[in-house]
This record gives sequence, structure tokens and C-alpha cells, in this order.
Amino acid sequence: MSENELQPLWMLKGLLTPEPVVATVPYVWPAATLTRLASRSGELVGIDRGGDRRVLACANPGLGGAPYASSTLWAAVQYLGPGEVAPAHRHTPAALRFVLSGAGVWTLVDGDPLHMARGDLVLTPSMTFHEHHNPGDRPMTWMDVLDLPVVAGLDAVFFEEGPSEEVDARTDRLSRSELRYGGGPGLVPSSPDPVRPHSPLLAYRWEHTDVALEALLEGESKSHGTIRFVDPLGGRDVMPTLRCEMTRVRAHARTPSHRQTGSRVGTVLNGTGIADIGGKTFALGPGDIFVVPSWGAFSVSADEQLDLFSTSDAPVLEALGLFRQREA
Amino acid sequence: MSENELQPLWMLKGLLTPEPVVATVPYVWPAATLTRLASRSGELVGIDRGGDRRVLACANPGLGGAPYASSTLWAAVQYLGPGEVAPAHRHTPAALRFVLSGAGVWTLVDGDPLHMARGDLVLTPSMTFHEHHNPGDRPMTWMDVLDLPVVAGLDAVFFEEGPSEEVDARTDRLSRSELRYGGGPGLVPSSPDPVRPHSPLLAYRWEHTDVALEALLEGESKSHGTIRFVDPLGGRDVMPTLRCEMTRVRAHARTPSHRQTGSRVGTVLNGTGIADIGGKTFALGPGDIFVVPSWGAFSVSADEQLDLFSTSDAPVLEALGLFRQREA
Amino acid sequence: MSENELQPLWMLKGLLTPEPVVATVPYVWPAATLTRLASRSGELVGIDRGGDRRVLACANPGLGGAPYASSTLWAAVQYLGPGEVAPAHRHTPAALRFVLSGAGVWTLVDGDPLHMARGDLVLTPSMTFHEHHNPGDRPMTWMDVLDLPVVAGLDAVFFEEGPSEEVDARTDRLSRSELRYGGGPGLVPSSPDPVRPHSPLLAYRWEHTDVALEALLEGESKSHGTIRFVDPLGGRDVMPTLRCEMTRVRAHARTPSHRQTGSRVGTVLNGTGIADIGGKTFALGPGDIFVVPSWGAFSVSADEQLDLFSTSDAPVLEALGLFRQREA
Amino acid sequence: MSENELQPLWMLKGLLTPEPVVATVPYVWPAATLTRLASRSGELVGIDRGGDRRVLACANPGLGGAPYASSTLWAAVQYLGPGEVAPAHRHTPAALRFVLSGAGVWTLVDGDPLHMARGDLVLTPSMTFHEHHNPGDRPMTWMDVLDLPVVAGLDAVFFEEGPSEEVDARTDRLSRSELRYGGGPGLVPSSPDPVRPHSPLLAYRWEHTDVALEALLEGESKSHGTIRFVDPLGGRDVMPTLRCEMTRVRAHARTPSHRQTGSRVGTVLNGTGIADIGGKTFALGPGDIFVVPSWGAFSVSADEQLDLFSTSDAPVLEALGLFRQREA
Repeated sequence: MSENELQPLWMLKGLLTPEPVVATVPYVWPAATLTRLASRSGELVGIDRGGDRRVLACANPGLGGAPYASSTLWAAVQYLGPGEVAPAHRHTPAALRFVLSGAGVWTLVDGDPLHMARGDLVLTPSMTFHEHHNPGDRPMTWMDVLDLPVVAGLDAVFFEEGPSEEVDARTDRLSRSELRYGGGPGLVPSSPDPVRPHSPLLAYRWEHTDVALEALLEGESKSHGTIRFVDPLGGRDVMPTLRCEMTRVRAHARTPSHRQTGSRVGTVLNGTGIADIGGKTFALGPGDIFVVPSWGAFSVSADEQLDLFSTSDAPVLEALGLFRQREA
Repeated sequence: MSENELQPLWMLKGLLTPEPVVATVPYVWPAATLTRLASRSGELVGIDRGGDRRVLACANPGLGGAPYASSTLWAAVQYLGPGEVAPAHRHTPAALRFVLSGAGVWTLVDGDPLHMARGDLVLTPSMTFHEHHNPGDRPMTWMDVLDLPVVAGLDAVFFEEGPSEEVDARTDRLSRSELRYGGGPGLVPSSPDPVRPHSPLLAYRWEHTDVALEALLEGESKSHGTIRFVDPLGGRDVMPTLRCEMTRVRAHARTPSHRQTGSRVGTVLNGTGIADIGGKTFALGPGDIFVVPSWGAFSVSADEQLDLFSTSDAPVLEALGLFRQREA
Repeated sequence: MSENELQPLWMLKGLLTPEPVVATVPYVWPAATLTRLASRSGELVGIDRGGDRRVLACANPGLGGAPYASSTLWAAVQYLGPGEVAPAHRHTPAALRFVLSGAGVWTLVDGDPLHMARGDLVLTPSMTFHEHHNPGDRPMTWMDVLDLPVVAGLDAVFFEEGPSEEVDARTDRLSRSELRYGGGPGLVPSSPDPVRPHSPLLAYRWEHTDVALEALLEGESKSHGTIRFVDPLGGRDVMPTLRCEMTRVRAHARTPSHRQTGSRVGTVLNGTGIADIGGKTFALGPGDIFVVPSWGAFSVSADEQLDLFSTSDAPVLEALGLFRQREA
Repeated sequence: MSENELQPLWMLKGLLTPEPVVATVPYVWPAATLTRLASRSGELVGIDRGGDRRVLACANPGLGGAPYASSTLWAAVQYLGPGEVAPAHRHTPAALRFVLSGAGVWTLVDGDPLHMARGDLVLTPSMTFHEHHNPGDRPMTWMDVLDLPVVAGLDAVFFEEGPSEEVDARTDRLSRSELRYGGGPGLVPSSPDPVRPHSPLLAYRWEHTDVALEALLEGESKSHGTIRFVDPLGGRDVMPTLRCEMTRVRAHARTPSHRQTGSRVGTVLNGTGIADIGGKTFALGPGDIFVVPSWGAFSVSADEQLDLFSTSDAPVLEALGLFRQREA
């Protein structure tokens, strides 16, 4: 049979298992390590050395050397020095940036300048041209998440370089995206932009997220709650492959243990606590990056009030009829 | 034939006309009249006298005595005196309240208390129990718009009285609806409420609308612009039969003349100007209620900056494949 | 107040009623009458006399002389003599034709020739040009249903004459619509037509409907069952304002009494029986046209096996969140 | 960095390529080989030997030994001997069966018996219990296609054994699925089944597909055409991960060369011809299984009239905003 490129099912093991058998392992990349190595890279490696970005990718120890945080998600820290520009390109993998500290860098998405500050979520959706500018005098670091493993697994990676602009200091202007869609809850222009697969709002500001979290916890009289970032025009996830959420856990509270199909990566914006991921325990503090494998139980308890940003591939699993979750 | 309850087509005229032949006429009900008659009603007529609401309905002169502002929309002013309660009921016609002046009344929608202040839009969707409470010491007046003519035309009016609460002063709390959905643009709870045909956000506050209008005009470098109020979960109109919008026109600017199928009613929140409705000219000021007939040309020019709230049946026409518009 | 075009709510009665108060009354127009008067019209009245169609409209006795079968539906019989052509036009009201007897006429819809035979349902959706040709030597009569009262009530009637073709005998060809969408259940072209608000399949043939009804009753081991005609591309009703269904009731069986908001008109293709409409009893036979008012109870019992075609405005009520039904 | 499970982007090559770099290679598994080895397996290997199915998986030579026809699709032949039963189970990967020859086996899907004959497409959607029964005295072979690589790549494989029935001969009954949804184009029960992610019609019969192909080619006056199998209730692909199509190419005609993201596998039902896949040429005849890699050009030319069944992961790429196609 093997000469004929055939394999008998009865010789194959582990194809159809009662529950997912997952290579991705629970893991945390500590902020201290990420910051130290990113800074050191900033000193030693030019931004044009390769890939036009100075990025350290989280490589899950269970994935045999692949540069992926999980089987479906890329997570990384990116470092941009004073006066540097990461030049324009676009690609089918979708990306998001979550800013852990600092301010002053701005990202140009299809010509629209999005400034970046601590706690902000900034989108660079599939096939939008994007470049990062640091007009200031201090370096800045943020977390990148991409759906690259999914897009690569589907043999659908396309990439194109674009014309970049000069270093520029337009960080104080609001983007056109925010001027149109960021005015308030449930308020959109009466002449909407053409429908695209992603949210027309490209930046979600921490000041709004903070208010929304506080209101949610007050409204529910709960010690923890989660806000989802959605397309203000359609209520869909911000991009067709990535779900973004922010969870607040009051000091000394704990979220219920929860499982879902598909993987999650995230980081801490504020506070400290303990994560329980697939039966393993990790201390969590600001800037740590964590990964939760598919169907792995996940809960966090807060020492001080925790604000936890997380991203998952849940929209992919939902679109394909494969999303499952349960408390456990 | 008439004995047999038949009518020959060749004797019928005007059934299929090149363009809509519309009975509704362009009209404006001046604020001074509305206020004077509403106040006088408050002195003379108990709230329990009939319909459990002290309401003056705008009756379009073209509609032969029907109490409707247009063939598809009910518009009215409602007056609630100090210490009064308009008791709970629900009905299939959907309603909205737009507040022209004052503050302090709150509306309870299915148990959720929504305070009402100048410039706010408050929804009481189809078949939600609603009651209005004025715990203060001053009367309050607002505009009501309902889709009653549409629902009545479809022989689908249902009505039910409900248990009312005592007069209460919970106006200072935010509603559960706003705590969950009003935190910011594109931010919703990760555990959403069950899907209903209407927006889960039931109050749209003037402070947000004002910011959104200003951002929209800045983003577009335009002298006028229109914000649509939508369901933050789905991007749909706030209710399946009513579209709500707010237009800002800078002083001395003018909107292009525009026609659409279906009728519109609206009012002025701020500013003064001139409306051109179906070829007739009307002066417009705060609190005036205007109606635009189906397919009638409409434009406004502002003396001082104008903020114009308007409601239409456009979602009905869109759902049925009958919506048309054009500049004219 | 009346001087100021205002009406106080407390003087208005009957606006918000516990259940719909419906002017449309239960009624049946007997086939014998319809046929006799249609034939006589054919002898006496030219097709170009008015409206370019020889049509007798069913005028519900409860509607004060309006030429409508119910508050939302137009129903009529149309008669086309040998060699006649009802010339091309289009209009926003949507129409359907259900053929009660004969064959040979064909309807050209936006250039696509649809032949018409007993039991067929033929659509002429909103704003499609349509004309009817009778190339044969015998007259033909069918039932028309239109959503005209709904479109007129929304002030959205537009009408346009079109260029007609000569009398032509292309009745034996299948339409392009059927060649593309009529091949079989769940089979559509891989390059679909542009999405329109109505079904791309414009004719539903009795031979298919008959097979589907028989299979449905066999599959459910029931004595009655109902098939819905839908858009093969989207599963939606055939047109956004009209639902079409065919019910088969075995001899001596009876359907449960059922109410729904919105009205229904229909006719009998095969068989005889008794209809109970809103508490009144009517004998039913082939070609009789009946109307069921909104929220009126409706059931039929069959003497011999009955095939009942019916049309309703249910898609309108569903789109607006106003559809209710119950067994009663 | 590697000690800290990090990888610098500037050391990684080939992550973001201008066009997809695809491991799957163009390939054809000849019918003669498939038949010979399947039959031999039937003689030598019990059905209970492993996996409860006697299946030979097509293993693409480019995939380094993985038992997949492409990076996203499993394709295989399955052989069921006289009197054998492949017992019941269910799993998250979705499967379809396309029958290349013979008749008499039936597949029970959640209790609904679907007989299988040449040219039929039978669905066993995600998490439906399914078992195969061969009550006859001759073996039967068919092609299986599953989305297993996609589901495994998302770490979402769940599997469960089910209670099987005895060998049974119910092949002559139509399934409940077909009795309800297979009556004709655009005809569905008025009381639909609960909405599920897949088509409620579980078998698509060759007699319908053949008629639909012939009508399509006649309607378009073309020498080739493609029918898509869709959900009769919603017009969606039959399952959320798999698109199924049948192409007819007249003798001596040729389809244009076409590329799309995502991979395709297929087989020939009738006729012979030549496939050009990604620049390589393969002779094609009945029962051969072919694979087209993502973004690889594909065309076929027919010696005698060809009927080609193909399956792709296009719904996955469309749902994620990653579908691209072009003539090339």
C-alpha cells in the first residue's frame, strides 16, 4: 500500500480520540524575560535585519520547535526604538497589538494613523497595510497576536510589501476609524463604510474598556466579569479569526474553571494573581504572556485586582460548528 | 359584480401610479403650541382619564382626521406632572421617547429603570412593559414616536396592562441595560443577553451623541453629518420598525435635498433654521415637530448650529425590499 | 386642539386593544361566480380597457368598498382570451399567479418565459417586468395575489410601463430560471445569480409540489401536511412580503384550528371540503377563493382529498417582530 | 532566547511568503489500484481490526507520511463486504460518502436510513451517529471525504461509540430526511426541523444531479457547468467545512484553468479525460481520486463526457475571509 501512497486505517492510531489530544502545553512567558530580551535585541539587532519587525515569538515547548504559542495562535513581543519605523506591508494573517506599557508609537493602517498607549487594543486586519512609527525618544514594547498558524495550515498565506511613509508625529490625532465609530455605544455614521470582514473600528481605548468593565461588574454585582471587543456595526468578533476579551477579577476573587475548544493566549495589564491552566499553577503579573491549550481548564485568582487581556480562535471554531465550552 | 363582492380592475383608478401618491402632507407643529396645550392639559385632565397617558397626538391635516403624524408614524407630546405615574402596560406597537427639555422622570422598561434627560433617546420596544415616573416637583414633557399605524394596518395590535410600581426615585442609578451595553463603542458583555428583535441598549445619552456628532464632522471635514442609533450587538436599527438618527448642521450650512420612501418625523433639539419639505418652507426651532411624507424632498439649513432628531419607518421598507432614496 | 392639528389621547378609543380588532371578514368567492363573470368580461371588455389586465378583484365586504381581499392582500381572477397579450409593465407591489385550470399561457418575467399550467405557482416579484401571452385558442383564467395594500399603505407604489413583445408561442421551453434552479432539491449553480430580495426560481411546478406533498405525508404518517415554497438559494420565503404554501388534507381528515397574525388568502386546487374561518363555515371546492382575517381561527376538513394553496403576509409580520401563532 | 522558549523573527524564514508555499502535491490515485487493494483488504482484514471501518486513506506524497490527501482533507476508499456492518459512532470531523459503483448498502444517520447507490452523495455531518450496513451478497466500495485535518489542526477532535443496530435490509425506504426535504426544488416542510449547522437533506441522488447538470448546460448553452450541493433550507454549503460540487464537461471540451485557496479532492463518476493540476498532467477515468493543492491551477478536458465530483474546504476559507480565486 505505501508504494501506492495509501495507508490502511487499521494501522493508524490516535486519529479519532474521545477528547482532543493536544500538543500545546500550558505555559507562561514572564514579563521580566520578555522585556530584558526585547531591550537587548533593540541594542543589538537592526529593525531591517529580517521580517522588518523586531519581534520575539513565544514558542510553545510542546510544539517541537515551531514558533507558535499554540497550535493556532502566534504571540510575541515587539520592540520599536526611538525614531524607528517598522515599514509597511500587508498579509492574509490578521494581527492585533495589545499595549502593555508606554505610549507614543502610532500604527498606520491603510493610511489611518492609530496612536498606541497602555491598555489599548489596535487591529491590523487581514490584508490591511500597516506600519509602526516611533517618533518619540523612548522605546516601546507591545504584544502581537496573529492567526498565522491557522492561515498557514490552510495554505493561504499571501504577503505584500507596501510604500511606507516617513517617520511622522501624528500621534495626537484621532484616527478616521475612531472619529466615525468610536463616538459612543450604539452610535454609527448613517452612511456606513463598505462592509468588510472585520470591525471598522480599529482601536479600542483603555479608558473605554476600563469604564465598561467597572459598569459590568456593578450591573451584575459580581466579583469578576468579561467584556468582549466587537464590531460596532455588526456585533461580530473584531476579526473573523480572533476573539478579544478583557476580564476584570476583583482582589481575592477567582473565576470559575472553564474549558473551551480552541486555544487562548493573553497577558496581564494590571494586578497580580495565580492562573490555573490545565492543572498547572502559574504566578501572573503585568506583562506576563500565558497560553491555554484547547480544552484545557482555565481559571485565575487575583491577589490584587486583575485586568487580563485574552485572545482566542473561538470565532473559527464557532464558524465551523466546532466550538464547545463547559464549566469544569 | 358588486353583488358578488368583486370589482373590475378597469373601473379602478389610481391603484398603480408612476410615483407614490401620498395623503400625508408636509407639516410642522410649533413647540409653543405643543407646550402650551400640554401644560394646560396637565392642569385640566387627570392622567387616568383615558389611555393612562396624557398625550397630544400630532394629526396630519392630510389624513382625514386620523390621529397620525404620517401614514406610518404616530408622533405626540407627552406631559407628566410632579408626583405622577403613567402606569405599566405593554403593546405590540413599539415606542421611543425623545426628551426635549428637563430631567428627572424615569421610565421602567421590563423592570429596568431608565432616567430621562434632555437629548436622551429612550426605547420601549414592542411588548416590553413600561411605565413613567415623575418623582420630582416639576412637570416634564417629551416627544413620543410609535409605529402604531403600521402595526394597526397589519391587524396586529395587542395590548396588556401590567402591575405598576409605586412612585419611586431611582433616577440616579444607571439601568442594567446601560451598565451592560453602554460602556463604550464596540464593548459588550462576553455573556450576551438572549437575542431579541430590538437593541439590548435601551437608552442613548445625549452626552455620547454629542461627542459622536462632533467626531463625525471632524473626521469628514463636513458642515453636516448624521449619526444612526443602532443595536450594539448587531448593528441593526434600534427596533425592527423604527430608524433613529441625529443630524448636526453647522451654522449657515445646508443639507442636500433628499428623498426616501417611507415617512419621517422629527424635532429640533438645539438651534434654529429652515426646513424645506416637499417644496414647502417651514421655520424650525427647538421642540418643533415636523413630518416628511414618503418620497418628499427634504433639506434643512441652519441659522445657528442645528441638532435634529428624526425617526423613520425605513427598516420596514428595507426589510420588504421597498426602500429607495435619492438626492433630489 | 383640533385647530392646531392635535388630538388628545383621552378622547381616542380603540387604538390599543387587547387583541386585533379586524375589519376584514371571513369570506369565500365561489368558483362558479368567478368563472362566469370572468368569461363574460372576456366577451364584453377589451384587455386594453384599463389597467391592461382583465382582472376581477375580490373586495372584502368588511373593508368598506376597498378592492382588497383583506387589509393586506389583493386577490383576483385574471382572464386572458385566445391570442391576447397583457402588455409589459412593472411595479413595486409583488405578485404571484396560481393556475387553477388550463395551460398554454406563458408569462415573460424580465425576458424569461414561464409557461403556466394547472397547479403551477408563477412569481412576478417587485419591479420585474412581466407580460402574459396566450398564443392558444382557448381562454385561460388564474388567481392573482398581490401585496398591494401593504405597499400602498407604506406610500411606496411605483409603476412603469415596459416594452412588450409580440404574441409568441415559446411555451414549451423551460425558463432560464428553472434550468438553473429547478433541477432538484438542494442543487444550484456553482456560479449563482446576483442576490436579489426574491427567489431566483420563478416557477414552482405542480408535478414537484404533488410529489413533495405525498412524501411529506408519508414521512410523517399524517393525514395532512403543508409544503412551503422557498428560495432555493436562501431558504427564505419566495418574496419578502408573501409566503406561499400548499396543504394536502386526506379525505375525511381535518386540520387543527390555527390562528396567526396577518391575513391569508387561498384557493382549492383539488377536492372538496369545509372551511371553518373565524367561527363561520364555508363549503369549499376547486377554484373557490377564501380569505382568513388576521388572528382568525382557521381549519379545513376534507370530503375528498383536498389540495389547498394559500398565501399570507407572514414574512412581513416576521420581519417586523409581529408574527404570532397558536393552535386554537 | 531558546532557553526561554522564544524565537527571534529575524532568524525565521518562510513565514510570510508572497504566495502560499504548499506541501501538498498534485496527485492521482488510480481506480485500478484502489479497487484491487480494497478488495484484497476485504479478503484479509476483518472490519473490526481497527477503527471499525475497512478504509484505505490516500496519503499525499508531499505531506511526509501523514494519512491525508491534502493539508486539509482526508480522502479514502471504504470497502464493505456482504453481510457486514460498520458499527455506529460519531465524531466532530464531518464526513461525506460519494458512491462510485454498486448499490445496496445503507447508512444509518441518527436513526435515518439512507440507501447508497452509484452517483449518490450521502452526508454524515459532525457529531451525527452513523453506521453502514451491507445486507446484500456483494461487496461495495465508495469514496469517503472528511475534514479531519482541519478539525485535528484546531485540536477539536471528539469521538464517541454508539449503539449499533443489527444487519438490516431497510434499503428500499426513502429516508425521513428525503421525504421532508427531497420532494423538489424550493419545496420544504412548513414546520421545519430545528436549525442545525448542516443541511437537513442528507442524501443527494444521482438522478436529480444528472437532470440538474443537463438543465444547467442547456440553460447556459455551454460545454461545461457545475452544480453545487446546498442546504435546501438555507442555501449554505451542505456542511460548514465542506463544499460539494459536480461538474459536467462535454466530450472534447475543456474547463478554464482556475485557482482557489484551499484544497480540493475529487473523483470521476463517468467518462475519461485529462486533468491539468498545478502544471502536471494526469489521465482521469472512473473511480480515480485526484487532489488539487491550494492555489494550484486546475483544469480538465474531456475525451468522452466527464462527470466529476469534487469536494473542497472553501466554506472554511470563506468563513475566515481567506477565500480567493482567479482564472489562471
